[in-house]
Amino acid sequence: MNIMIDSAVAMPDVQSSVDIRHIAIERVGVRGVRHPMLIAAESGGSLPTVGTWELTVSLPAHEKGTHMSRFVALLEQHRQTPMTPARFCDMAVSMLVLLNSEKGDIAASFPYFMTKVAPVSGVASLMDYEVKWTARVQTAAACGSAAANTVGQAEFELSVLVPVTSLCPCSKAISQYGAHNQRSHITVNAVFADPALVEVDTLIRGIEQQASCELWGLLKRSDEKYVTERAYENPKFVEDLVRDVAVQLQNVAGVQRFRVEAENFESIHNHSAYAVVEG
Amino acid sequence: MNIMIDSAVAMPDVQSSVDIRHIAIERVGVRGVRHPMLIAAESGGSLPTVGTWELTVSLPAHEKGTHMSRFVALLEQHRQTPMTPARFCDMAVSMLVLLNSEKGDIAASFPYFMTKVAPVSGVASLMDYEVKWTARVQTAAACGSAAANTVGQAEFELSVLVPVTSLCPCSKAISQYGAHNQRSHITVNAVFADPALVEVDTLIRGIEQQASCELWGLLKRSDEKYVTERAYENPKFVEDLVRDVAVQLQNVAGVQRFRVEAENFESIHNHSAYAVVEG
Amino acid sequence: MNIMIDSAVAMPDVQSSVDIRHIAIERVGVRGVRHPMLIAAESGGSLPTVGTWELTVSLPAHEKGTHMSRFVALLEQHRQTPMTPARFCDMAVSMLVLLNSEKGDIAASFPYFMTKVAPVSGVASLMDYEVKWTARVQTAAACGSAAANTVGQAEFELSVLVPVTSLCPCSKAISQYGAHNQRSHITVNAVFADPALVEVDTLIRGIEQQASCELWGLLKRSDEKYVTERAYENPKFVEDLVRDVAVQLQNVAGVQRFRVEAENFESIHNHSAYAVVEG
Amino acid sequence: MNIMIDSAVAMPDVQSSVDIRHIAIERVGVRGVRHPMLIAAESGGSLPTVGTWELTVSLPAHEKGTHMSRFVALLEQHRQTPMTPARFCDMAVSMLVLLNSEKGDIAASFPYFMTKVAPVSGVASLMDYEVKWTARVQTAAACGSAAANTVGQAEFELSVLVPVTSLCPCSKAISQYGAHNQRSHITVNAVFADPALVEVDTLIRGIEQQASCELWGLLKRSDEKYVTERAYENPKFVEDLVRDVAVQLQNVAGVQRFRVEAENFESIHNHSAYAVVEG
Repeated sequence: MNIMIDSAVAMPDVQSSVDIRHIAIERVGVRGVRHPMLIAAESGGSLPTVGTWELTVSLPAHEKGTHMSRFVALLEQHRQTPMTPARFCDMAVSMLVLLNSEKGDIAASFPYFMTKVAPVSGVASLMDYEVKWTARVQTAAACGSAAANTVGQAEFELSVLVPVTSLCPCSKAISQYGAHNQRSHITVNAVFADPALVEVDTLIRGIEQQASCELWGLLKRSDEKYVTERAYENPKFVEDLVRDVAVQLQNVAGVQRFRVEAENFESIHNHSAYAVVEG
Repeated sequence: MNIMIDSAVAMPDVQSSVDIRHIAIERVGVRGVRHPMLIAAESGGSLPTVGTWELTVSLPAHEKGTHMSRFVALLEQHRQTPMTPARFCDMAVSMLVLLNSEKGDIAASFPYFMTKVAPVSGVASLMDYEVKWTARVQTAAACGSAAANTVGQAEFELSVLVPVTSLCPCSKAISQYGAHNQRSHITVNAVFADPALVEVDTLIRGIEQQASCELWGLLKRSDEKYVTERAYENPKFVEDLVRDVAVQLQNVAGVQRFRVEAENFESIHNHSAYAVVEG
Repeated sequence: MNIMIDSAVAMPDVQSSVDIRHIAIERVGVRGVRHPMLIAAESGGSLPTVGTWELTVSLPAHEKGTHMSRFVALLEQHRQTPMTPARFCDMAVSMLVLLNSEKGDIAASFPYFMTKVAPVSGVASLMDYEVKWTARVQTAAACGSAAANTVGQAEFELSVLVPVTSLCPCSKAISQYGAHNQRSHITVNAVFADPALVEVDTLIRGIEQQASCELWGLLKRSDEKYVTERAYENPKFVEDLVRDVAVQLQNVAGVQRFRVEAENFESIHNHSAYAVVEG
Repeated sequence: MNIMIDSAVAMPDVQSSVDIRHIAIERVGVRGVRHPMLIAAESGGSLPTVGTWELTVSLPAHEKGTHMSRFVALLEQHRQTPMTPARFCDMAVSMLVLLNSEKGDIAASFPYFMTKVAPVSGVASLMDYEVKWTARVQTAAACGSAAANTVGQAEFELSVLVPVTSLCPCSKAISQYGAHNQRSHITVNAVFADPALVEVDTLIRGIEQQASCELWGLLKRSDEKYVTERAYENPKFVEDLVRDVAVQLQNVAGVQRFRVEAENFESIHNHSAYAVVEG
């Protein structure tokens, strides 16, 4: 093993050796790091949650290894930052400098909560969604520009998993009474060129409108009557869910491309119906 | 570290050292071993599946460690055995001899398949269930009998997770039309003194009868009409599911004690309704 | 279906019907509710996290159903409460009153973070642990006392999953150099009669001391040398882990009974070594 | 809801309605179907396992829905077929005909077992790997050819997750003795134009050679000495794992493109080191 000596600490610095396999690495870093996270609320203030993080950078063919501890150090530095999509992209740019790399991604998945008001009784409760943010950045050098080490490109990808009710149109049409319905997961991945245009709450509310019915944490009996009848009046196939959300996304400002998935945990089978649309 | 020398292989046998902390270990062994498994079919023949195994024995206070490789060796020996609950208990007895222990458990979880016929069209398809077998055995010595090393007691625990449809009685009663319904998991744990009395297929069929409706892998449109109407005619709370299955279990021969759990993955919430009865 | 009419809302109140199956239900309620949570820090202030909650009560044989929405309403009421084990038990008592029940459990699992200082460099970073709190309460009536509806008994169960390094004594003893080591999970469940005696941070620190080496989020190269050598000097079998933690727990004030589990995700196999001690 | 009447069964055939949203669906079908599966062994015979299946087809903009039951019917037809990658692609072609679609994918994930012989003692045992097959097919019409309904293109993607040992070169270099090591997952996705060229066993054996050491189900003490020393003599960073596997894949016949991921479940942290290379 060919080891360079890092004189400052008098320890071999194996990661800084020269690599001879001529294979560049797309992304290397840390994964599955659980860390507290503050989300800047659209209404002001910040929402605490817990993120599961992945931080990675590209590694040129001639470098043997990256410096893993720097990723976690970066995370520690941002523990108190109320995060917006824009600050999340800035954090990714800091990572490039810290790791001396040309390209890098930061992704964080976290439970996200919104207060919802029940449709009839008006009681308030929280709903939980699974949200994932991904920032992908690269230096101008990596883009082919002459001005190295200035950031050349960034993109922000928002992923939201919105649980809803779906009610089967076929089951309703063929049955004397009733219709099978179930919980469904609608997952939207949307890429924005400008992170300042991301509006998570608005997007989630829009997705919920496309379902047979949306979900609430807390429902009184009058609400339960409402959601039962609402779903029955509004049957949707898994195909309808992804198409209706796709129509919605075509009208969201700043979305460059998207993928919509729906998975219905069928109440009459032990498997799911599933559909995906890209746009 | 005080190490004994195992002269046969001229290597230290650390596990056979004497332990001085005076703490007996309830169970020690291997966990999460994925291994093929043959289930003897009640109709003859055998059903291949894949089990996730846990094999453990008790360790007296004065022994430092068990011999982990012997558990896996035992598993290899039984790869071709069409397993019945009785043979599974025998395998656990073999484990006591192999590990020179007084008490031990073997548990295996595996997907189990039954052919079902759709209620109207009659088309056949498989349904999958999650089944877990646990054999708990001990020597006569461990039971306080004079005749050491003969098996004194064994018990066999059967766990089955049966996915079904539940339809909410409240939602039906208060709504003009429709009723929310969803996939539910009914999990039964039943302990038998005599493994020969275990009838998995019969038990599963009985559990399915207690739900608002049972599930099938393959349903034609005529079947979908049937299951939709059947569930609507047969609403059940999560409390009804566990009670009705408990009544059923009180009549199953050989069951010494049981636990019934039901979890409804509510189609109107992002959480479950849950109930448990023990008997 | 026999339905009572709830005159206030002019809707049937199916849950309040009389049940005739003569089967009491151990526990019924909600499960898998994801909700923000504040943990009162031992050092003052509060730590925000996200809990996954299960709230259940017993249901007598003659009652048909419980009132699911009240569990979620209780959760909403406590969203801003910095939780201690004692307040968590109080919340469970409130649940009994709200649900008009004699016995009930509240359980919440959540990621818990502690700041740790690296052993040589002294850099600070967070470590994450999975913690679960369970409060089990019952009224005096349920305990056989004459004074109904006052709380008669409560117990608090603390569960902590502490990830550590284990290094195999056998591998070290028989090899010319090196020794296989791996991440291990030590899970302690401890029941306290008095929730005021629970000290989570102290317990976790004590558990970490029993491993071959503890883990940190952020380690510099000097620290990595330390943890490598520390683990090598301190080999432990899975049996040693559970025994050493059991010895520790025997000296923790207020612990009535405990279970210690260790699972080593063996680096030389695709399965785990596992042990459990109860005390 | 506009419903067509299917005269044959006198039931509305909602799925066959005309859709007016002008959104084609990339893929729609069933997901999470657990079904037995036979893998044709390279040595002859067949290996039974349990697959988790996803079957999907594209849906043109003017069609409202697909026919979900036909996917499961297809699965039932192939239950007894010893599967090769080529037959798996043929099954996907059958799906296009059955669903009257131009494009479609079939994917199945399953545990796969190989017999391995321990390096010193020679004892045999099984190792389990997670394998996923994906067949993507389209008709000539979908490819722009004049001859509709004959298959124009197919590709087969093989994914294998191979668990191995990784030992840290930095930890070894800087420490007086020992080196941290851990279980790692190497996941290879490789796309083949010709499914006849796929050799799963050879690929897995090749991947295992690139690790610090491979794993076995059953090891005697002499083997444990070997694997401990072998890993210590052969340290690899997560970057080395993906590069060395990439070099290997560059020499596998028939591979059109690939992705190699490695995740080290670090024994000194509670998170993973992760790297990915594409080629």
